[in-house]
Amino acid sequence: MRFIHTADWHIGKKLHGYDLIEDQLAVFLQLKEILCTKKVDALVVAGDVYDQSVPSEKAIKATNHLLAQLNLDLKLPLFVISGNHDSAVRLDTGSKWFDYTHFYLKTQMTACLEPIVYDDVQFFMLPYFKLQEAKNYFNDQNIVDLNSAFELLVKQMQAKFLPTKKHILITHCFVSNGLKDLEVGTQSPIDVKILECFDYVALGHLHNKNALKHPYIKYSGTPLKYSLSEANQTKGVWLVDTTKETCEFITLKPKHDITILKGEYAQIASLEYAKKVNSTDYIGIEITDTKVIPNALENLRQYYPKILNLKRLNGHEMLLTNFKQKTLKHLEPLELLATFFEDVNQQKLTNDQLVWAKEALEQSKGESYETTDA
Amino acid sequence: MRFIHTADWHIGKKLHGYDLIEDQLAVFLQLKEILCTKKVDALVVAGDVYDQSVPSEKAIKATNHLLAQLNLDLKLPLFVISGNHDSAVRLDTGSKWFDYTHFYLKTQMTACLEPIVYDDVQFFMLPYFKLQEAKNYFNDQNIVDLNSAFELLVKQMQAKFLPTKKHILITHCFVSNGLKDLEVGTQSPIDVKILECFDYVALGHLHNKNALKHPYIKYSGTPLKYSLSEANQTKGVWLVDTTKETCEFITLKPKHDITILKGEYAQIASLEYAKKVNSTDYIGIEITDTKVIPNALENLRQYYPKILNLKRLNGHEMLLTNFKQKTLKHLEPLELLATFFEDVNQQKLTNDQLVWAKEALEQSKGESYETTDA
Repeated sequence: MRFIHTADWHIGKKLHGYDLIEDQLAVFLQLKEILCTKKVDALVVAGDVYDQSVPSEKAIKATNHLLAQLNLDLKLPLFVISGNHDSAVRLDTGSKWFDYTHFYLKTQMTACLEPIVYDDVQFFMLPYFKLQEAKNYFNDQNIVDLNSAFELLVKQMQAKFLPTKKHILITHCFVSNGLKDLEVGTQSPIDVKILECFDYVALGHLHNKNALKHPYIKYSGTPLKYSLSEANQTKGVWLVDTTKETCEFITLKPKHDITILKGEYAQIASLEYAKKVNSTDYIGIEITDTKVIPNALENLRQYYPKILNLKRLNGHEMLLTNFKQKTLKHLEPLELLATFFEDVNQQKLTNDQLVWAKEALEQSKGESYETTDA
Repeated sequence: MRFIHTADWHIGKKLHGYDLIEDQLAVFLQLKEILCTKKVDALVVAGDVYDQSVPSEKAIKATNHLLAQLNLDLKLPLFVISGNHDSAVRLDTGSKWFDYTHFYLKTQMTACLEPIVYDDVQFFMLPYFKLQEAKNYFNDQNIVDLNSAFELLVKQMQAKFLPTKKHILITHCFVSNGLKDLEVGTQSPIDVKILECFDYVALGHLHNKNALKHPYIKYSGTPLKYSLSEANQTKGVWLVDTTKETCEFITLKPKHDITILKGEYAQIASLEYAKKVNSTDYIGIEITDTKVIPNALENLRQYYPKILNLKRLNGHEMLLTNFKQKTLKHLEPLELLATFFEDVNQQKLTNDQLVWAKEALEQSKGESYETTDA
């Protein structure tokens, strides 16, 4: 069979205050086209359907409509799990009815032990879960981390492998290729090796499809760029063919891209430069100037209406940040002044300035003592 | 056919801070028994499934479980509309799938124009809606009130009446038997006459089954007492038989009743009295004493752990309230004092007191002037 693997939809997401629902609907329109033109047999969504555990009515309306279109109008089987952003309980509403039309929505850890056979595939659906749930299920409070929990669960899943079927895991977690000590939030990573017994693993959680390099254990990434840090990532979905044992990445084109503009203020705040930029994009701006620029953000908005962020790479504020990061507390007052002056002005104090500073410092000391004595 | 008419479940409701979910589950257990033993063909819920537009996870879990039991396990057709307490959008989740198993969940005003034929009945489902929705639908901004909107909608429904079927309306609104100027919240009442073309009208909104006296246009009321003002109401559901054209009220027994105790403090705060009261009930207490009673609530809780409210019918606070309600601003200071004294002490000022009060008043006037002049 052929299925599309996507994840981390984050429906209802706001980007620096901008409501992304129109962008999301536009990208789902493309997804529907792909599902039809590529003759796909099923859609897999590996968690984080919603951006928030209590989504807005707007987000719920859009999601309900989309899922009904896919499952009831297009008659497409859906395999959807909850992610850490979803409320398992809220998302679960209706799931018992959805089964009847091959819309498998699973929100409980134990769902993975009741695989769903569809076509030539056995789907194991393991939603996002917390360590305590595994401890309770295995009645073992000594399970140290999610990795150990996954080991135990995968063993139980393996025991249910039908030899004539392909075995596909859908899950939402942080899987790592060796960097054991790396942690995303409070989650310890799952060793990719634990999952290698499956024929394909459809992962959700990390937003970058390149977050893990593995031939058949893959993150799909988000369908859209959801932060400035994702500006240079390619977004899309995996088309998985279980017969040919291939997976092909199909890119999705955003309605409004995220673009980062980097350079001198005078250059970026010019009509000539702005003309080359898609004005409807979400824009992140990184200014290299060192001097103070009054009303920079306000002026830039005239060229770029949807600015997400203005960053001063070498500006006063960055210098101050760099300055503060040095160990300052051991400096004598005069050294402190000299360092500050050099950082802000990019030049040393002259001898005259140094003499003047010394005198001023002595004077202020005296005043200070007087004030204290008074 | 035979169906049960219920409404105003308010799942997730809290009563003076007490979570009612256990009481609600207990009463739904009775409802399930009735549905089975009375060989009922369908269940009608006339709005306010939830108590809040954004219900808690606990409330959602309980509701999802209950509805799945009724519709999928007991194979019972369900006819459910949204009420003013529900979020139409949130409640609607899954509704397109529910249709397949005869679970008709309608949250849009226009749903009433697509009646559902089941057995010998045509069900017209008209959820709670706002006047503006009717104005928009009829493209007539001059529709003055809900009553006019209902008139127009009922006309359109009547045009769809199948002559071989019974016509049953399920709706959630304030229907009145003549008292045109009475209003519940901002809602003007619907004239009961508009609805008399139906064979039965299953109403939700008012919590008392006796809120409207009509042979076949009925409120079911809530399945439980949801406020102290409902303490003396009988709660239950209507069993409607469309063949025999009868409706029978079946009472539901609460796990914990609401009881109001009224009398002298010393009597109510006694073991002898408390023994006659079910200690697990929710208790409202009305004390008739006039004197101040220190720590009354605290002392009473030793006898009645779940006190909802303590009311002093003749106590100091009630006297003050009564006192304030009189027109006081026209009284001279001495009259004001005399009235206050009499209200609080239940006796008039003596002559000596009156003389003393006069002197004190004169004295304070003088002081006041001095202070002002200073």
